[in-house]
Amino acid sequence: MKAGFVGLGSMGLPMARNLLKAGHEITVYNRSHERAELLRAEGAQLAGSPADASEAGIVFTMLADDVAVEEVVFGDRGIAAGAKNALHVSMSTISAAMSRRLAAAHRERGQSYVAAPVFGRPEAAAAAKLTIVAGGERGAVERCRPLLEALGQKVYVVGEQPWQANTLKIGGNFLIGSMLEALGEAFALMRKSDIDPALFLEIVNGNLFRSPVYENYGRAMLAGTFEPPGFKLRLGLKDVRLALAASDETATPMPFASLLRDHFLSGVARGYGEIDWSALAKVIAEDAGLK
Amino acid sequence: MKAGFVGLGSMGLPMARNLLKAGHEITVYNRSHERAELLRAEGAQLAGSPADASEAGIVFTMLADDVAVEEVVFGDRGIAAGAKNALHVSMSTISAAMSRRLAAAHRERGQSYVAAPVFGRPEAAAAAKLTIVAGGERGAVERCRPLLEALGQKVYVVGEQPWQANTLKIGGNFLIGSMLEALGEAFALMRKSDIDPALFLEIVNGNLFRSPVYENYGRAMLAGTFEPPGFKLRLGLKDVRLALAASDETATPMPFASLLRDHFLSGVARGYGEIDWSALAKVIAEDAGLK
Amino acid sequence: MKAGFVGLGSMGLPMARNLLKAGHEITVYNRSHERAELLRAEGAQLAGSPADASEAGIVFTMLADDVAVEEVVFGDRGIAAGAKNALHVSMSTISAAMSRRLAAAHRERGQSYVAAPVFGRPEAAAAAKLTIVAGGERGAVERCRPLLEALGQKVYVVGEQPWQANTLKIGGNFLIGSMLEALGEAFALMRKSDIDPALFLEIVNGNLFRSPVYENYGRAMLAGTFEPPGFKLRLGLKDVRLALAASDETATPMPFASLLRDHFLSGVARGYGEIDWSALAKVIAEDAGLK
Amino acid sequence: MKAGFVGLGSMGLPMARNLLKAGHEITVYNRSHERAELLRAEGAQLAGSPADASEAGIVFTMLADDVAVEEVVFGDRGIAAGAKNALHVSMSTISAAMSRRLAAAHRERGQSYVAAPVFGRPEAAAAAKLTIVAGGERGAVERCRPLLEALGQKVYVVGEQPWQANTLKIGGNFLIGSMLEALGEAFALMRKSDIDPALFLEIVNGNLFRSPVYENYGRAMLAGTFEPPGFKLRLGLKDVRLALAASDETATPMPFASLLRDHFLSGVARGYGEIDWSALAKVIAEDAGLK
Repeated sequence: MKAGFVGLGSMGLPMARNLLKAGHEITVYNRSHERAELLRAEGAQLAGSPADASEAGIVFTMLADDVAVEEVVFGDRGIAAGAKNALHVSMSTISAAMSRRLAAAHRERGQSYVAAPVFGRPEAAAAAKLTIVAGGERGAVERCRPLLEALGQKVYVVGEQPWQANTLKIGGNFLIGSMLEALGEAFALMRKSDIDPALFLEIVNGNLFRSPVYENYGRAMLAGTFEPPGFKLRLGLKDVRLALAASDETATPMPFASLLRDHFLSGVARGYGEIDWSALAKVIAEDAGLK
Repeated sequence: MKAGFVGLGSMGLPMARNLLKAGHEITVYNRSHERAELLRAEGAQLAGSPADASEAGIVFTMLADDVAVEEVVFGDRGIAAGAKNALHVSMSTISAAMSRRLAAAHRERGQSYVAAPVFGRPEAAAAAKLTIVAGGERGAVERCRPLLEALGQKVYVVGEQPWQANTLKIGGNFLIGSMLEALGEAFALMRKSDIDPALFLEIVNGNLFRSPVYENYGRAMLAGTFEPPGFKLRLGLKDVRLALAASDETATPMPFASLLRDHFLSGVARGYGEIDWSALAKVIAEDAGLK
Repeated sequence: MKAGFVGLGSMGLPMARNLLKAGHEITVYNRSHERAELLRAEGAQLAGSPADASEAGIVFTMLADDVAVEEVVFGDRGIAAGAKNALHVSMSTISAAMSRRLAAAHRERGQSYVAAPVFGRPEAAAAAKLTIVAGGERGAVERCRPLLEALGQKVYVVGEQPWQANTLKIGGNFLIGSMLEALGEAFALMRKSDIDPALFLEIVNGNLFRSPVYENYGRAMLAGTFEPPGFKLRLGLKDVRLALAASDETATPMPFASLLRDHFLSGVARGYGEIDWSALAKVIAEDAGLK
Repeated sequence: MKAGFVGLGSMGLPMARNLLKAGHEITVYNRSHERAELLRAEGAQLAGSPADASEAGIVFTMLADDVAVEEVVFGDRGIAAGAKNALHVSMSTISAAMSRRLAAAHRERGQSYVAAPVFGRPEAAAAAKLTIVAGGERGAVERCRPLLEALGQKVYVVGEQPWQANTLKIGGNFLIGSMLEALGEAFALMRKSDIDPALFLEIVNGNLFRSPVYENYGRAMLAGTFEPPGFKLRLGLKDVRLALAASDETATPMPFASLLRDHFLSGVARGYGEIDWSALAKVIAEDAGLK
């Protein structure tokens, strides 16, 4: 199949590469040219703009946030100004509100729109092991499904409203953030009680939770090495803001999310915005008077 | 080996039974006589008081809370008034402060003391698959180890201070409580966004967390059947209070624990104290205006 | 002096009237015509659009929120499309972000801009006893000062950045909201302790706080009559959102504001959005299991 | 009248002195002898123990916390072991639970008990301008009323249950603590927005709240001089704990109180326990990355 791909960051690049590997004809666009060049050598066509990339009929976007998506869709030579019957598959973690705005704008122009955010880190993207959560009209989802299946191990369809996929993804990230905070607090309590937090983690995760997420983040917190970041704290803050925005629109009180916001915000205020979001444990430890 | 066992509730009864099955000579005591009689048929001796039960040399207690432990140890014919060189192995989930008080009181009387709280539900107790976390002087821990090994699948030693085992256990329960709250909030957000929370759980736990704890509690919340309780909400409140007490003593701010307290407290105020603690999801849903 | 006035709601109408009374020539515009007609009888001119109202050289806006201001300034025949050298004096409680956007848009068009939000209820507006907090370039503030002085008892100048006046106003409303929450919690504690909350209020406010704000809101909570609303709960939620937006932009954790948001949100979810914001006490009482 | 007075700290000393000035015959007891000697010169008798002080028939206690009260009442030669028909008037800020325990213990011994905590700082105590909140049986309250009137400007009677007076007092201190937190957050927002917090305080308190409490604490926060302490942060933490204990017993969620606890606790963890409790603003400012 033919497809365009816009956004070749740490997630987008391996994803576009997997589409190429699976035999699809991919036209890529990236704001900084160099990353696009990397893929040319592997068989990709280069597009001069997001609008050009949409000429392939289906165009994926994998971008940092609402602002980046707005630019790529509504900016000069953006996707909205591209091919009339194009299907835009937005895989970024963006707000439900932006997703609704994209749905309306594409519908107005005769274009189609599917929101298909993913769970998984860059390594999962490279291994085509992402979990993909799609929302949109059945026909549109089926149209891009073969491509989605080249990107992930499993494709779930949430509903006919694209924004529902975004809210589901946001809910998942909120759960991880809550886990970071809870683990951070428990570790601080152990440290102030002269209990080895590594033993605590071994006991509770080994026997109780048995979750790779606790395992991985727990280890990061124990080591106290938050660099290089797997996921930056300021992006964690961004995702909590998305959760709070969704909570606001639906009148769903989410006090854990509120508290997470304040702690991530304090992390940014203390200069930890660019290190891993598990540095939440650092904020918590400092509040407890630990070094 | 010979041992006494005090407290034959839903946890204590199967535990004492496992000691019997493993060939140990067990003398039991329970406030209400009937449950003790159950074990007599299986070979247990009956003691007339906790003090009498301590004559076996090692005496286990498995009780509801600090108040019950206080009664059994310091009350009339309590363990403190029992055998001079007895070793008291306290397996209840109690406060670090009470554990320190027990340690001091037993030391004063020439008795020994080990705190050995457990992770696991009654089914795990019945299957001798508890996870046991022991704290105390090495010699004392080794003295009771063969018996502990008949009760659980793994025995961890935290340190020489018994209360550290209690704090570790409290930290583990705090993590579960936090998970309930986070899941409850995420479910409310899904419901108010017309997203099937069962699908949400399938996606995030199946692919991300992969934890039996999320799986089990998530299912309970989805079904909305909080009866019969696996663990009563008012006991969840009790355990959060223990976490906050530990946080207080060590000057460790734990804002998630504080918030949990207020939600569990509201659960009690709304009349949910006797149903399962996953009914926290019910409190959260009501706050969001859901039926 | 000549001036335009856009927005004749419960605040704007008495304010425009006071300008007329003080002898100024006022041209008014309101979306619904009837309220404008009320003032015609008192000597006001009617404008056909916000742009027309700006022909007076100075144009005031007193509107509900960011969305209403956006419409009046950037909509069809909005102020931005009005008189070239007009000075826009925005008296609404809006976000710092919107205020910055207005400042930039007006500057671009050669227009001037002052933010001058007010403290005070409709009665204070009618009595020309508002407290006015102005932000903007000195010359612009001085240009409208005589008019501001006809509206309030005191005009404070915060700084040269208009948005600072908005943030200051938002901070003030946050303090009132915090007072509502604290008072609501204390009242719930008194009621559940069989202590007369009226006596509590008499003692603590009469002797300690001596504040009319505690007095007035305390009385409203005691009476439990939240209708007609002095200030609607959903506007309280709006203002807390503004506080959180300001906190977000400046990386200032504000956990009380976060908690207020969740409680106001729960109030909206329970159907209290249109009653007085002191109904926060009702949300709190319900959470405590009170009728 | 004759009365004993136990506890001559910064509050108790001027209070006992006022009783002397009013012509009453006062017998004093204090753990450290020197402060008692100060009053001997002014006409007081010295007692050798709290029990001895109770021989006067009415005995006041003004002590730091539950632990100090426990010692003075139940310790060696404590009030409980004193005069049979003595009336104990407890003016300390203690828990409702301790107050109930005192009531029961005194009743058992044929003694009477009134809880009469006060609002006011040492200066108010010296000026006999305390606000006194009494709880207890009518006869007992009337018996000590002439003495209470020599200590304060106003005596309120809450109810027949002494602990209700303690809960009311705790509720008042909770309101002050909440005000500190709210003001601290607002100040941090102003500072991070380059708005002079002194101007903010002038505007919102001068026009809106008009409360001496905001005025005084606001000034302390602005100056940033938290020493010497008017009321130590660790005592603020103590009082929030009392509020949380009362909330716990009555199943009244108090999320502001929970949050206050965590912030005061962090203050203690950061080493601010011995400076003024308005240093809460310092904790908040640090969390916002301010120096």
